[in-house]
This record gives sequence, structure tokens and C-alpha cells, in this order.
Amino acid sequence: MTDARYMALALQLGRRGMGRVWPNPAVGCVIVNHGRIVGRGWTQDGGRPHAETVALAQAGPDACGATVYVTLEPCAHHGQTPPCAAALIAAGVARVVVALGDPDARVAGRGIALLEQAGIAVETGLLADQARADHAGFLSRITAARPFVTLKLAGTLDGRIATASGESQWITGTEARRAVHMMRARHDAVLVGAGTVRADDPALSVRGLGIPRQPVRIVVSRAVKLPLTSQLAQTARQSPVWICHGAEADVADWLALGAVSLPCAVRAGQVEPEAMMQALASAGITRVFCEGGGMLAASLLGAGLVDDLVVMTAGCAIGAEGTPALAAMGIGRLADAPRFALHDLARLGDDVMTHWRRV
Amino acid sequence: MTDARYMALALQLGRRGMGRVWPNPAVGCVIVNHGRIVGRGWTQDGGRPHAETVALAQAGPDACGATVYVTLEPCAHHGQTPPCAAALIAAGVARVVVALGDPDARVAGRGIALLEQAGIAVETGLLADQARADHAGFLSRITAARPFVTLKLAGTLDGRIATASGESQWITGTEARRAVHMMRARHDAVLVGAGTVRADDPALSVRGLGIPRQPVRIVVSRAVKLPLTSQLAQTARQSPVWICHGAEADVADWLALGAVSLPCAVRAGQVEPEAMMQALASAGITRVFCEGGGMLAASLLGAGLVDDLVVMTAGCAIGAEGTPALAAMGIGRLADAPRFALHDLARLGDDVMTHWRRV
Repeated sequence: MTDARYMALALQLGRRGMGRVWPNPAVGCVIVNHGRIVGRGWTQDGGRPHAETVALAQAGPDACGATVYVTLEPCAHHGQTPPCAAALIAAGVARVVVALGDPDARVAGRGIALLEQAGIAVETGLLADQARADHAGFLSRITAARPFVTLKLAGTLDGRIATASGESQWITGTEARRAVHMMRARHDAVLVGAGTVRADDPALSVRGLGIPRQPVRIVVSRAVKLPLTSQLAQTARQSPVWICHGAEADVADWLALGAVSLPCAVRAGQVEPEAMMQALASAGITRVFCEGGGMLAASLLGAGLVDDLVVMTAGCAIGAEGTPALAAMGIGRLADAPRFALHDLARLGDDVMTHWRRV
Repeated sequence: MTDARYMALALQLGRRGMGRVWPNPAVGCVIVNHGRIVGRGWTQDGGRPHAETVALAQAGPDACGATVYVTLEPCAHHGQTPPCAAALIAAGVARVVVALGDPDARVAGRGIALLEQAGIAVETGLLADQARADHAGFLSRITAARPFVTLKLAGTLDGRIATASGESQWITGTEARRAVHMMRARHDAVLVGAGTVRADDPALSVRGLGIPRQPVRIVVSRAVKLPLTSQLAQTARQSPVWICHGAEADVADWLALGAVSLPCAVRAGQVEPEAMMQALASAGITRVFCEGGGMLAASLLGAGLVDDLVVMTAGCAIGAEGTPALAAMGIGRLADAPRFALHDLARLGDDVMTHWRRV
């Protein structure tokens, strides 16, 4: 196998941690000695142990003289455990291939420097583009102080998410809903607006996939006008519920139910989307999956905060009385419309999924 | 080759005539003698000569004792030319394989009966489903007195076809537009509402494909409030323009420019979509490609007159101020929404095409 094949495997392993390791990056690691894979690791649930620690433990004495493939620069700072760079040195590895440098100020090249000082051959940049895509959430949190945001729109052929009477379940079918649950699981948090909670009373949990760690459920509601009888309120102790709200809102009832409060700046009567994203990044969230409604979706898109856009389209048409997937955005000219490039498209049962990425 | 392979070839040949042979069906024919294809034919532009005539001319004396594969029952009635059934008998063919019987009252089994009476072995029903799909326009005209209707919607991710200021060109890119021209070419007629003519002044012609026969350009306008300076008005002599209008409208100016008038019943201030489709079928149209706008599209969908739906989606979002692809349809319950099954999906440059078929 070539270096690139081993790194591709490390990237694949790393992705297993997506949505489960925040605030840490979902790193993957493969250790190869004399053409034999002696260690495989990925960042574990909650962010520890790191991928390198797992792979080194698996390799044992076989790590000595081995080549290590790791999708992000090994850490150099003492946290709850000694740094991975030190562990690699102690294990006597001969060569480390790194996909991408870590922009975290506590690492930022020092992991690589430590290794080189110990006489280990280090190469950086292998499959860097793929690593950059996989670590987009972590990189965004560190360098832009906001999480990576995926916006999901699910509706009819003509872009409607509910009938005039509010009927929205189920426009798309089981396969599309299952895909949504898989996407939720690969994000640290699921985000909806207050209107969606009031209209649909969603659980926002990942069901049917047997995952051990549920994404954080986040609601944006300036005034916290949310029913205390809602599924979110009633399950806030079992699985985290965070509320992004205006500073003046009374959130006491929700705190009593076990929810977490994130006060945010308000603009034009709404929680400011930039301030909300900054608060989420500060709280450690790297990947957010927004499921609407139309007001929140339009506000995130309008603020340029949407990185990936996933559209689930059902084979039916409702017409203009239906609720639009996107509310008003104040866009006058086509040139001002946010643009996305097609990343993927697939048939999901009777529905179509298109996946778009910010241009 | 098997019978099915020859019939598939005949179907493929037949499709070449789509959009060019109305009011006749676009038939294909293959003649095989001792395992050798001796004749290939398809209905020619304008509907004559028929596929069998073309294939027989190509086969010459080799038709004697041959097997003929034809996608629709050979005609039995004397029209401008003698019936195809008689021609096949005269050529001495041994066996005729027919995909589908012709429901036209002048044929309706009599083509097959003529052949059998002449001692020719006839088999019917090979690849009948495919033939039924290919001949859907002709079958619809004969059995339901209306053409097959394809509705095209082209817009943004959120189902908008223009900005609030009316900007609509070009939301989708060159590949999508080229695909639209190819679809126009495979339909007998292109249909738009009066609002689209006023807003966009479209030419509705097939460009860049070198086709010899343009589809009929049809505008629905109850009161014929259409600019006489429009491209349609100015080119009505070069390529047909038909106007479906209320009986009381003054259409004299358009007639003077060379347009054709089709008076239709009016309901609730609009040309009745059913009446319009009946008028088009009477005029010989078998396949209609409707390109909007949102009012006409909603009215056709609401009346259950859309057979195929083609959606071109660009990777941008405009929000709720934009013009919706479908106007109000009066649908209250999701169960009442017209439903379509996914037939095809493809990436077209930067856009996505989804092709849906009536359930």
C-alpha cells in the first residue's frame, strides 16, 4: 500500500468520531510497521483518548521503528494526558505522516517540531484537502470562532415544508428520514428555531442507529416562548438541551428542567445569528445541523453562516399557500443570492437528496 | 439477437420522431431476414411516410420471408397512402412482432387482423410497457382527448423562479438550458402563460440543435393581452404561434401577424385548462412541454393534467420574496397534493435535473 492509501484509511477511521468528540477534532491514526498495519485508532467519544493514543496502545512494541499516519498534527500540550507528540517519541516511531497542521494555538506546528527534534522524519500535507473537509468543524471553531453549519431543508418539489394548515409530517419518506438521523449523528448539535418547536414538537434525537451519545439539541428563541410540555422540555435531563436566547429572557423554567442557557446578542428582535454561532463555538461545538424552520434557515443563509446545504425533496407539490422552506431573505438581485456547488446527489426511496457546499 | 433486442432497437429508432411527427405516433420499425437487419425505419417529419414504409423501402426484396418489429400496430386505413398492413403483406413478410396495439378507432386491431388473414404470424405485447411510455402522447390524444404534458420548473434551491424585482435570467446554467432545448425538441409544442411572455419575452424556439422543425409555440391568454412587439409576435410567420384564449377576446392583431387562434372555455376568469388541452388534442398535438409561469403550472397541476415533471435546480437561494415556481393551488391537506415518482436524476453542469412521473 502507498502512503496515500494508509492516510485514506486514517481519514476513514477519523470520521467515525464525527459528532461524538467535540470540542476535540475527530482524528484518525494508522501505524504501519514493515508493511503491516499494527495499530488503528480514532478519537474516542467525548474527545479522549486521542487517535494516536488508541493506535499506539494497539501497536504496543510494534510501534518501534514504525510509520504513523495521522489526519491532524499530533498535540504538543499537556492536558488531561501527556501530549501525543511525546507519546509517539516515547514509542520510538521512525516516521510520522501528517495530513494537516493543527491551527490550535496550543499546537500550531509545535507537535511537528517536537517530533523532528527527536529525530523523527515528519511529512505534512498528504490528502490535506480531504483532511481539511473532514476537520472543517474543528478548523472553523478554532480559526473563525464559529462551528461548521449544515442546513437541512426537507420539502416538496416546489420548496414547501408544510401545507397552509401546518401539515408537515411526513412529506419525505422513511429513507430520507433515516438519512437525516444519520446526519444528525455526525454533528455535535442539532439546531432549530422556536417556531419549529411550537409547530412540530420535535424530539431531535437520533433514533434507530444505536449511537451511545446524542447530539446536543439547541433551540433559538429570543424570548424563550417555548412550551414546557414539549418533548425537548420533558427530556432535557436525559439528553442535553441548550437554549440560545436574548439576555433579557426569563429562562428559569427551562433551567429547572435541566436545559442550558446561552444568552446571545439580539438584533432587530431576533437572536443575532453570528453571536449565537460564536457562543456555540465557545461552548465547544464544532458541527451544527440546522433543521429549520424557514425563518432561522433564511437568517443563517442571509448571514453567510451556512457551509453545507442538504435538500430532501419529495415527489409532491403543494403550491404557494404552503410554508416556504426559506422565509424572506431581503435579496433583491440574483447576484446577491448565496451560491452553493453540488457536492452529491442521490435517490433516497421516493425522495431525492441533493447536497450542496458553499462556493 | 433476440426478439426483445430488435424491438428495443425499433423503439430507439421510433423515438427519433418525437416532437416531429404529430398528429401521428413516432413509430420505429426494424426488418430482419436470416439474422440480418435489412431495413430500419421511423416515422418521418410531419408524420409521413410511416416507419414501416421507410423500413420496407430499405429492405426491398429482402423483406420477403423476413420478420418485422414494429413499435405500434401497423395502420389498416387508407389515408394519403395505402395502409402499412397492406404494404407488409405485399412485401411477403413472414412474421410481424408488434409492441402495442393501436387504439385509434381506424386501426384498433384491424391492422393485426389484416396481417393474420394474409397468413402472417403476428405476436403482440413485446416491450409493451416501454412502447406505452414512448407513445404516451399519441395514446393520450386518442384515448383521453388531451396531449401528454411535461411541466418544467427551473429555479433555485428554495423553489423560486425570479427575484422580487423580476430577475430570472439566468438562474440555471448553460447545460440545463441546453437540456431544456433538447426537451423542447422532443415535444410537439411549447406552452407558456401570458405572464411569462410579458415578463420574459421568450423566443421558445429550439436553438443550437440543428432541428428542421420547430415545436409549435403556444400561449395561454384569456384576453390576449400580449405585446405585439414580443419575439413571439414578430416571428409568428417563421414558426407557428398558437393562442389559447377566451372566446370573447380580440385576437385580430395576432391573426394578422400569422398566429393561430384556439378559442377555449373560460372558468373563474382563466382559460379552462381541460378545455385548452382538448383543443390542442383536436388540433393534433400529442406532446406539450409547459415552461410556466407559476400560475399556469399550478393550474395544470391542480387540474391533474401534468404527466411528467422536470425540475431544474440551481445552487442558490433567494428566499420568500422571490416568485414561486408554483402559484397558489388551493391544496389544504398533504393527501390532496399531486404526487410524482422519481424517474431520473442527473447533474447538469452546476445544476440538478430531477425528472418525475405521475404516480
